[in-house]
Amino acid sequence: MQGMIVSNPINVKYLTGIDSEGVLLITRKENHYITDSRYLEEVHATLTIDDEIIVSNFTDISPYDYENFFSFCENVGFEENYITYATYKNYLQKYKVNNFEETEYLIEKGRMIKDDEEIEKLQKACEITDACFNHLQNFIKIGMTEKQIAYEIEKYFLDNGADGVAFETIVASGKNSSKPHARTTEKKIEAGDPITIDFGCKYKGYCADMTRTIFAEYVPEKIKPVYDLVLKNQLQTLNDMKEGMTIRILSKNVDNDFKLHGYSLAHALGHGVGLDIHEFPYINSKNDNMLKANMVVTNEPGIYVPGEFGVRIEDTVLITKSGCINLTKSDKNYIIVG
Amino acid sequence: MQGMIVSNPINVKYLTGIDSEGVLLITRKENHYITDSRYLEEVHATLTIDDEIIVSNFTDISPYDYENFFSFCENVGFEENYITYATYKNYLQKYKVNNFEETEYLIEKGRMIKDDEEIEKLQKACEITDACFNHLQNFIKIGMTEKQIAYEIEKYFLDNGADGVAFETIVASGKNSSKPHARTTEKKIEAGDPITIDFGCKYKGYCADMTRTIFAEYVPEKIKPVYDLVLKNQLQTLNDMKEGMTIRILSKNVDNDFKLHGYSLAHALGHGVGLDIHEFPYINSKNDNMLKANMVVTNEPGIYVPGEFGVRIEDTVLITKSGCINLTKSDKNYIIVG
Repeated sequence: MQGMIVSNPINVKYLTGIDSEGVLLITRKENHYITDSRYLEEVHATLTIDDEIIVSNFTDISPYDYENFFSFCENVGFEENYITYATYKNYLQKYKVNNFEETEYLIEKGRMIKDDEEIEKLQKACEITDACFNHLQNFIKIGMTEKQIAYEIEKYFLDNGADGVAFETIVASGKNSSKPHARTTEKKIEAGDPITIDFGCKYKGYCADMTRTIFAEYVPEKIKPVYDLVLKNQLQTLNDMKEGMTIRILSKNVDNDFKLHGYSLAHALGHGVGLDIHEFPYINSKNDNMLKANMVVTNEPGIYVPGEFGVRIEDTVLITKSGCINLTKSDKNYIIVG
Repeated sequence: MQGMIVSNPINVKYLTGIDSEGVLLITRKENHYITDSRYLEEVHATLTIDDEIIVSNFTDISPYDYENFFSFCENVGFEENYITYATYKNYLQKYKVNNFEETEYLIEKGRMIKDDEEIEKLQKACEITDACFNHLQNFIKIGMTEKQIAYEIEKYFLDNGADGVAFETIVASGKNSSKPHARTTEKKIEAGDPITIDFGCKYKGYCADMTRTIFAEYVPEKIKPVYDLVLKNQLQTLNDMKEGMTIRILSKNVDNDFKLHGYSLAHALGHGVGLDIHEFPYINSKNDNMLKANMVVTNEPGIYVPGEFGVRIEDTVLITKSGCINLTKSDKNYIIVG
């Protein structure tokens, strides 16, 4: 591959720091970023001479220019998992490349290993998320709606230096908690409700992801053994997570222990976190790869009893050579609110 | 075309009411919606027997089933502007269709003409947006940041029955207003600032879109002629909008008048609004089509003086046989806040 067209803005941001709409062309001769008049000023402010990227307004680029960008490149990569079929056809026609090559998440795979600067931002995102959870424990009262709680989270993030939420906050109480991917509703918090809160902020583009299942007024007896089982497995996974650990086995271990108790792991055990809230590596029973130092992943086992309740406990975790560091540090014992 | 694979969730929602992740297969024999376990319950609750859609969990569908869905369909449409190149290849391999056909925004074009139920929702979205603007006029004070104002808008929408914001709110004050697509910053409102607020809520999935440029404490003399010129053209466009009007001419008229005064129209004059914030028809100087009754479009001329200030005034408008109805009804005279 002698060149690549990078279209996914998250990948462009990762490679160049540019946070706008446009296309990055990596060629044998030089690198180009093509955007439109709306973003030119901002892009120029982001880049320095050392970045060696030529920035252009797409209106200044002729059909001839397009044909010449890759004139000495036999094979040019493109992001087959990002661009539409129509865009692919448009690239074919515009760039007149001999051989367009699928890149199979090349850049996304590079993004798995975080550098120090990225880890600092992820740490800060997790810190703000922890502080928000602390705030919520005093904020949540019986009679509030799930949406009110989600809204308070958003407000807290904005008021405390975050870019905003990293993803749509899930607040699922009572029976709503029984869905692995519940939506936040107008349901009011009632005494005895488990409340699953899945949330996280974004800080300078980097995401935090944490889930706690807490309880309104008291912990129902029937939920305790399920909570304990989920927590035990979450802690065991934390204990097992380190460079060299085969990802598949982490997930299998949890599923096996859940099955011993009549449950199963209904979703992935976790996923990478970074500029995207969900990125490589996916922590599931099909992933034969190993964890590596400086990956940042979630650890989020959950059990869902249909129509009754659910429990999920999730941390964002930094993998190291000898173990792992929990970036989200909030309490995981029974927490009572209201 | 004897069948179609509908992958764009907005198009699926438009055709079926289903609001989830999945694929709709329209075939000669029957219609299928394929989703996953997370959404099954909700999808079943949305549909009635009259919808004649067979809902399945993708885990229950065999390779043989995939090959048979379109067994009597020679040509099957797909959304080339929505699905990725990788998904296209996956469809080719899975559905074993003889001839996949590009559908060139077939459903999106159908969405241009709104029915009564859609118009009611759009009206309601615009009403809440108007009420929010009313609220803002008392809320905005000198010294507040743009972000605080954007945040208040979001809060107002959530507190007043909307789904949330229809798009990321733009609050651009002072020099920031000189960018056609400004971002909301931490800049504080100062006396003499023009403040361009481009915002709208979503109500039951339908979007409102309105812009007003208002002023902190006083209207600077140098801005008045530009404001008046933008407003004059916005009103003239409202006057011209009706079934049968050629879209291109609307845009040309504004651009011509701007040029007479030494400016130009730097962006499209407007766009369709519905389930998407930007949809067909696009109101620009290249669109040779005519407006039709029951289209809902924006009318948003703007002038931007680089490094100094900008003025944009926008309404969401329902086209009728004899004229148009402004769905956003907020005042467009000079408005002073702070």
